[in-house]
Amino acid sequence: MKASELAKILGGTLEGEDVELFACGGLEEARKGDLSFCKDPKHVKLVEKTAASAVLLPPDWSLGAPCTIIRVADPNHACMAAAKIFAPAEPERRPGVHPTAVVDPSVKLGADVHVGPWTVIEKGAEIGDGAVIEAQVFIGEGCKVGARTHIYPQVTLREGTIAGKDCIFHCGVRLGGDGYGFNNGRREDGSVFIEKIPQLGIVEIGDGVEIGSNTTIDRARIGRTYIGPMTKIDNLVQVGHNVKVKGYSGLIAQSGIAGSTEIGYGCLIWAQAGISGHIKIADGVQVGPQAGVPQSLDGSVKYVLGTPAESMKEFGARTLLPKLFAKLKAEVKELKAKVG
Amino acid sequence: MKASELAKILGGTLEGEDVELFACGGLEEARKGDLSFCKDPKHVKLVEKTAASAVLLPPDWSLGAPCTIIRVADPNHACMAAAKIFAPAEPERRPGVHPTAVVDPSVKLGADVHVGPWTVIEKGAEIGDGAVIEAQVFIGEGCKVGARTHIYPQVTLREGTIAGKDCIFHCGVRLGGDGYGFNNGRREDGSVFIEKIPQLGIVEIGDGVEIGSNTTIDRARIGRTYIGPMTKIDNLVQVGHNVKVKGYSGLIAQSGIAGSTEIGYGCLIWAQAGISGHIKIADGVQVGPQAGVPQSLDGSVKYVLGTPAESMKEFGARTLLPKLFAKLKAEVKELKAKVG
Amino acid sequence: MKASELAKILGGTLEGEDVELFACGGLEEARKGDLSFCKDPKHVKLVEKTAASAVLLPPDWSLGAPCTIIRVADPNHACMAAAKIFAPAEPERRPGVHPTAVVDPSVKLGADVHVGPWTVIEKGAEIGDGAVIEAQVFIGEGCKVGARTHIYPQVTLREGTIAGKDCIFHCGVRLGGDGYGFNNGRREDGSVFIEKIPQLGIVEIGDGVEIGSNTTIDRARIGRTYIGPMTKIDNLVQVGHNVKVKGYSGLIAQSGIAGSTEIGYGCLIWAQAGISGHIKIADGVQVGPQAGVPQSLDGSVKYVLGTPAESMKEFGARTLLPKLFAKLKAEVKELKAKVG
Repeated sequence: MKASELAKILGGTLEGEDVELFACGGLEEARKGDLSFCKDPKHVKLVEKTAASAVLLPPDWSLGAPCTIIRVADPNHACMAAAKIFAPAEPERRPGVHPTAVVDPSVKLGADVHVGPWTVIEKGAEIGDGAVIEAQVFIGEGCKVGARTHIYPQVTLREGTIAGKDCIFHCGVRLGGDGYGFNNGRREDGSVFIEKIPQLGIVEIGDGVEIGSNTTIDRARIGRTYIGPMTKIDNLVQVGHNVKVKGYSGLIAQSGIAGSTEIGYGCLIWAQAGISGHIKIADGVQVGPQAGVPQSLDGSVKYVLGTPAESMKEFGARTLLPKLFAKLKAEVKELKAKVG
Repeated sequence: MKASELAKILGGTLEGEDVELFACGGLEEARKGDLSFCKDPKHVKLVEKTAASAVLLPPDWSLGAPCTIIRVADPNHACMAAAKIFAPAEPERRPGVHPTAVVDPSVKLGADVHVGPWTVIEKGAEIGDGAVIEAQVFIGEGCKVGARTHIYPQVTLREGTIAGKDCIFHCGVRLGGDGYGFNNGRREDGSVFIEKIPQLGIVEIGDGVEIGSNTTIDRARIGRTYIGPMTKIDNLVQVGHNVKVKGYSGLIAQSGIAGSTEIGYGCLIWAQAGISGHIKIADGVQVGPQAGVPQSLDGSVKYVLGTPAESMKEFGARTLLPKLFAKLKAEVKELKAKVG
Repeated sequence: MKASELAKILGGTLEGEDVELFACGGLEEARKGDLSFCKDPKHVKLVEKTAASAVLLPPDWSLGAPCTIIRVADPNHACMAAAKIFAPAEPERRPGVHPTAVVDPSVKLGADVHVGPWTVIEKGAEIGDGAVIEAQVFIGEGCKVGARTHIYPQVTLREGTIAGKDCIFHCGVRLGGDGYGFNNGRREDGSVFIEKIPQLGIVEIGDGVEIGSNTTIDRARIGRTYIGPMTKIDNLVQVGHNVKVKGYSGLIAQSGIAGSTEIGYGCLIWAQAGISGHIKIADGVQVGPQAGVPQSLDGSVKYVLGTPAESMKEFGARTLLPKLFAKLKAEVKELKAKVG
């Protein structure tokens, strides 16, 4: 799109060449053909060095730019608006079942459901109004998918999984795999046995839950593995069997929650953190990146870090220990010299 | 199912309203329509607060319950039995090849094999008697899948992969991807090169191995990446090329084993642990959650923790260090005051 | 293949029984039917104990072997050559579109492109000459795939993804999933809201990039998530939105890069390491296994370890702390005794 055309849409004024623009990008990452933005004169150096073809600047910007300028009242806001214009159109998913989908005759499809090519929906499943089930999805027997839930390609829902309304499941999400559970020991004759414990429960996902690519949530041993409403889960997260996430929480990429643990409301589990099984994390607690939580957190500490997890103050003290130790060692040396 | 009907099946006696029951669940997580259980009077508070519609209790329980009671000799056992009744029926996978599957004419299918819709089985592959290959699976050229092995939807076996009998591969398992191997350096002219090292081996999986959702096991550079019999692997685990897991071991979620490492018999690698390449873990060793193992473990320590991994005693001492340090610092201060 | 035939191909001489050989393997892992190799007499004990059926040895080896011997000038090199002979033939992927693939009429297919069964390519996508798109792949609207790029089964490219030439994407790779971004807070009435931030950008992958099984790379919020040329990514890696990897870097298994972070040229991020968002890692820096990097690294330290990441020297000192502490404690005790 021509810069002049974009300036018009954004209600701004153009200065300089009427370049062709294709995408948005931050000042540093932008390239030829990109539109960037800057609000604050303190970032002038980044503006001076940007490779963008045009930059959104506030009306009172007097520091120039090495490219076309579009002056607008709020550059940040205007850039988001431009990003929406440049964004690849969201693919249209019209109501209807693709002729190649294998949908069991017993499946109850709501109004205006989209089912993509090569998707399998097994018997007894129910799909709510306006749901979008993209290509190559597997929905097992008796699953329930709520209204307007969007399932991207190559997601699998094993039998009995229940998903709420307005959920988003990204590519490669695995719901309802067997939980990890085995009995083992030795038989009377001394030989070892390892025996699978049947995983008889299901996974239940509340309304408004988003689950990132290749995340796995196991079915309960008995009862339900439960992800409460509005929980937002990132990519490659592992949720064990019988975990209960009450709701309104975030689980960031590559974190893992072991079996039967309960995560309170409004918790944030940062990337690569691990939480042991059979414990409780109180409402509102944050578990820092890579932290390992071996026991329940009652909420008296709001943010924990490290393995085993401790308060930020304790973690900070631990981090400083080598320096403090060196100082103490010098003091002891001095003392020894004095004492003789 | 009516509580009265269930009581009959479980050989128990009903007290209270003949409620309708749909699922099992622990006392805390149970909701309306759930059956819960309690064996020990010490959990009476959980019974008092449960939202379950009915609870399994032992014959001599005298503390009441806020819902229907079913008295049975062994409440835990009865709850497992009830869970089996409530469980979503395991989907029937009848022998036969779905008409939409693409199975090369050269493939040898055993007796009573199930092949689901949209599955691809390439030339020269062999599938053992009674194996279940579900929907949307990819089995590459020359793969061998043992009798009764169950492959869930959207698993991929790259060419040459060998899987034993009675295995279970959950959704999204990736067997036989290229191992990570590159040569790099500078050419005579100073330019950098990065060159792929051909990954010419295979993955071989022993009998009775279970592999969790989205776990990845790479093919060997030469020879085999080997997972020995009865090994149980959880979700999102990474096994590098030429790793050898002797057998009867467990690899818990999100753990990773780097290339050419050998894991002995009966090991347990806990969640998010990482094991370096080209080392050996002796039989029976356990590697704790999030531990990082940089060198071989000879079995003289049976459980290691931390990064770099050490014994529980050492790890415990390290954890206590900030407190011990503060104490020592105070002692030194006192000494200094004395010495003047 | 008969050992005599193989000896001929490798230009070696056979001693002992003309056994049948099926695969290669290291001395320790080799079994009946395997060919192994040894160059250096210092490994003679491994030769003595090998279960291989034949072993490649240098012409001057005088220590014997418990199996057939093939003498060759360079045993290592000969074993690689043999491995290529034993390797499962790389499946042939002839030019052409499988009749079951759903390819939109608007898609531009280059010359000699292979498209496998059950693959979906949506409208406006462009596939370069000689690209191989295997079975069950999903390529969204407007995606561009460069010449000779090889996409293994069950990969998904969401709309707008751009992939360079000569790339390899292994099974289960997810490109272009929504980045993790939400606004949250409380409404005037006190109720909590969590609102999805539109993820309007794309993923762009440079030439010669290899991406391992089940790795996930999210689309940018605005602009591009960028993986520069010749970057080699292992399995189960997470790359957040708006990350920029300049090129010629390696990201090892299960590592994660949070949003908007920049990784310089020639970096190596080891297994299970985590890098925070909105920071920069200078060219050539290595981040050790399981390290956690909370802030930018300017390249003054070339290898970091630990959480928070520090130099190897600092990490080593920290590791030794418990021992040094015990020593200092003893010294203080002695001093106290002296001072009285």
